[in-house]
Amino acid sequence: MSNSSTENPNLMEALVSLAKRRGFIYQSSEIYGGLNGFFDYGPLGVELKRNIRDCWWRDMVHRRDDIVGIETSIIMHPKVWEASGHVAGFTDPLVDCKVSKQRYRADQLFFAAVTVETEKPLPPLPGHESFALGQAPHTYGTTIGYVSALESERTTEELQEAAEKLKRKKGVQGKLVPVQPQEFTEASESQIPLIPSPATGEPGSLTPPRAFNMMFETNVGALKDASSVAYLRPETAQGMFVDFKNVVDTTRVKLPFGIAQVGKSFRNEITPRNFIFRSREFEQMEMEYFIHPDADWFACHEEWLKWCQAWLISIGLPESHLSLHEHPKEKLSFYSRRTVDIMFKYPFGVQELWGIAARSDYDLQQHQKFSGVPHVMFDEATKAKVVPHVIEPAVGTDRIFLAVLASAYAVEDVKDEKGNVEQRTVLRLSPRIAPVKVAVLPLLKNKEALTNRAKALYAKLKRRYAVQYDDGGAIGKRYRRQDEAGTPWCVTIDFDTIEKEGDTFTLRERDSMSQKRITEAELFALLEEQVY
Amino acid sequence: MSNSSTENPNLMEALVSLAKRRGFIYQSSEIYGGLNGFFDYGPLGVELKRNIRDCWWRDMVHRRDDIVGIETSIIMHPKVWEASGHVAGFTDPLVDCKVSKQRYRADQLFFAAVTVETEKPLPPLPGHESFALGQAPHTYGTTIGYVSALESERTTEELQEAAEKLKRKKGVQGKLVPVQPQEFTEASESQIPLIPSPATGEPGSLTPPRAFNMMFETNVGALKDASSVAYLRPETAQGMFVDFKNVVDTTRVKLPFGIAQVGKSFRNEITPRNFIFRSREFEQMEMEYFIHPDADWFACHEEWLKWCQAWLISIGLPESHLSLHEHPKEKLSFYSRRTVDIMFKYPFGVQELWGIAARSDYDLQQHQKFSGVPHVMFDEATKAKVVPHVIEPAVGTDRIFLAVLASAYAVEDVKDEKGNVEQRTVLRLSPRIAPVKVAVLPLLKNKEALTNRAKALYAKLKRRYAVQYDDGGAIGKRYRRQDEAGTPWCVTIDFDTIEKEGDTFTLRERDSMSQKRITEAELFALLEEQVY
Repeated sequence: MSNSSTENPNLMEALVSLAKRRGFIYQSSEIYGGLNGFFDYGPLGVELKRNIRDCWWRDMVHRRDDIVGIETSIIMHPKVWEASGHVAGFTDPLVDCKVSKQRYRADQLFFAAVTVETEKPLPPLPGHESFALGQAPHTYGTTIGYVSALESERTTEELQEAAEKLKRKKGVQGKLVPVQPQEFTEASESQIPLIPSPATGEPGSLTPPRAFNMMFETNVGALKDASSVAYLRPETAQGMFVDFKNVVDTTRVKLPFGIAQVGKSFRNEITPRNFIFRSREFEQMEMEYFIHPDADWFACHEEWLKWCQAWLISIGLPESHLSLHEHPKEKLSFYSRRTVDIMFKYPFGVQELWGIAARSDYDLQQHQKFSGVPHVMFDEATKAKVVPHVIEPAVGTDRIFLAVLASAYAVEDVKDEKGNVEQRTVLRLSPRIAPVKVAVLPLLKNKEALTNRAKALYAKLKRRYAVQYDDGGAIGKRYRRQDEAGTPWCVTIDFDTIEKEGDTFTLRERDSMSQKRITEAELFALLEEQVY
Repeated sequence: MSNSSTENPNLMEALVSLAKRRGFIYQSSEIYGGLNGFFDYGPLGVELKRNIRDCWWRDMVHRRDDIVGIETSIIMHPKVWEASGHVAGFTDPLVDCKVSKQRYRADQLFFAAVTVETEKPLPPLPGHESFALGQAPHTYGTTIGYVSALESERTTEELQEAAEKLKRKKGVQGKLVPVQPQEFTEASESQIPLIPSPATGEPGSLTPPRAFNMMFETNVGALKDASSVAYLRPETAQGMFVDFKNVVDTTRVKLPFGIAQVGKSFRNEITPRNFIFRSREFEQMEMEYFIHPDADWFACHEEWLKWCQAWLISIGLPESHLSLHEHPKEKLSFYSRRTVDIMFKYPFGVQELWGIAARSDYDLQQHQKFSGVPHVMFDEATKAKVVPHVIEPAVGTDRIFLAVLASAYAVEDVKDEKGNVEQRTVLRLSPRIAPVKVAVLPLLKNKEALTNRAKALYAKLKRRYAVQYDDGGAIGKRYRRQDEAGTPWCVTIDFDTIEKEGDTFTLRERDSMSQKRITEAELFALLEEQVY
């Protein structure tokens, strides 16, 4: 269950509404009623997303000497997913409600026994027994039924309320024992028929959990049978492993080195939710960092953990919203040495943003085994061939997008020119990723001397930057429009520009709303420094 | 059949080989034997592809005031593809060989009757008759069988050779009439059983052509039935139509305006071929330009035709390789007003690169009809609501990539420092799209004064540009390595840099191989001018 202390459901509503209203994010195929788990990025959204992606690429690939990029196909040979373990194991536990036809993820469906404390045992449910509570003289606990609820910030409360309702309905006297929520995955064979479906409220319709493979399937070629089955990749990472040998053979990489990729992945989620946080089609930015088997993998893992946190801060995420979650040893896969997630305080709770995993040499060994092709590098020091180990930082572009939006969003009281208090909505986006870098605003739209100068500046700026020209309405209104789009700077061409010496403009800063005079050269220098 | 005058099969082989050797393009899942019609982009390839994409975006979206971008999901609501006509009509004619299990596109499979001219009629084939040839006194033409061949630059010659072989085999006397190649789509019911399969050489195994839908199918959600069928988009264009209303409602666009998108599309091609030219997974850069129904659509179409040609030239494609192909009126869809393709002289023939179509208001009308949602804009001039018409320039990133590679590739004789003639392979890529913009080369790797200066320059450059540092081997060898990667400039830090005043480097230009001294400021100015 998510961390309820950080919840802010109103913020989430406000974000979804802003995202739609200003053209950041639309529901996919909205005119046809939408498609659950799929989203489109609108004119402002696509720029923000491109900037996140480009910043990552620039910092990860161009600015480093040890990392190269690739772009592999979304549909790969089906053997890739056998080797990776996805065909056998990339599943979620699925529960059907046979009456309502609703589907649930068993690990997101919670249930609790409704236990009543009485002085004498009550008649027990089938497969159950009353039990003694406390020290002698005993009271007795008897399970009179079950309640269920979907995972939310109020799961426990909802279960407790439902338990009270059930007790009243059954007319049972006695004291209700506080509910102990359990995942449906832990339900026993005898419990399952007694647990009510969240859809109908009645027991008897839920199936035992079954493993549901989340890979989308398709068929390549004209035949539609087992021989032509292929999958939409559920992660981009396998592309780096499958092309490892090609990259080693066709570039001059030496250990340690990384291969990075940005691209779409697909997971047939049973319950997509939390807007773009868990969708069925999403974009990943993954990197596989190959190291010598004898290298200090822990130190390398720590370094990447630091790098990723620093990068998130560099694009404007507040450090206060970030935390670390170390996966407990007993929950790691057998080949995994360590996984730490960078968590982000989303409006719906603290959730995983970036997973950094030390995966040993498992993936390369698997592909070596399944393909029969050696996946080795020659080590100069020991004059031996080695299969490298790997550190994998894997993050979703859409999750960063949502984190950025959530932490940049603010509604605040400000004073207008006349000193009246009004509200403004502002997106405090870092200049590195803001969709529009500068808005060029002629003070008046019908004064040619102003508009000519403004247009000349605009033309010069847009050769390199995403900028907007806006001459519509009062200047304060235009500032607000840009505040809401997250534009870091507005440049106003006013009478001082055309009448005084120096050809200066008013530079208005989004967050502080401070204004100062600036020349064209200073403006370009500011952008060069802040945008890249 | 493709235009045979421009064929250069050796160039194609050389390109595929270079693409693999230098890490531009790999076969997808190569270690598992590959997957027909799918490709990966390697470290140099991904940079080139990103640059093509970014140039297009900058010129199409950022540098224009009338176009906004979006990014829509690959999987959309299935109704989208009913409205667009793809479910019913996005098919290719498929022919099976029942013996070999090979599949052919009927319009890429050619056949010809083998007709022999004799003084007396020969016994005809079933369903055939001998016929009189020429004026009296007649000779007689008799069809003694059929031959077939796949589309290639030599289709007619191959059919003729096969005809001669058949005549010899059948031991028929008489003069062979020159073969008349026909598409298999034109074969009559009585001809089909007589046409040999290209796989076996024997007649009787080819099926009549049937319509094969090229959309990849999948299922969304846990159910796998008709209700959950969804498709991988076969084009990005429908995203712009389906989001038209959202874009109009959430931005300040006014007619005429465009919506642009870059993204993956998928087509289950029966016969993927010509490397990345016709693959099953590919990237499109499409734009829908909406205009008033009464606007001069022809003039607008012409303008876009010019814009697209100019853009191709701006990224370095030679004008001499471009031509136009106007689709004949009788071959246009009923709603289409005009389509002109910009053709490119590929090594395998002149082929479509960029299609510019005037599609009337068909798409918006279809979505209006299927969704029940009005797709209109308010026209200030006439105070009426109108459904805009659209001009659509649609191009494939991979096709541009291949065109760029093909026209940039050269092998030439050059003189080395000692005057000896040697060969160099060079990619004459435009600086706008070259994967590496500058290579920084210290003259010697073991002279700290050189390497320190080189590293400082390198660090400064890579903040903004994709650059390489190379200190391995003789300087000539390093130049060759960069020539083959298409790097426009090499900067050598030599003894003049560190010993003479002015802190200048040797700038070596890729195409002319000329060298001159340049300062750091001049280098940055050169990049600023040439790269953006």
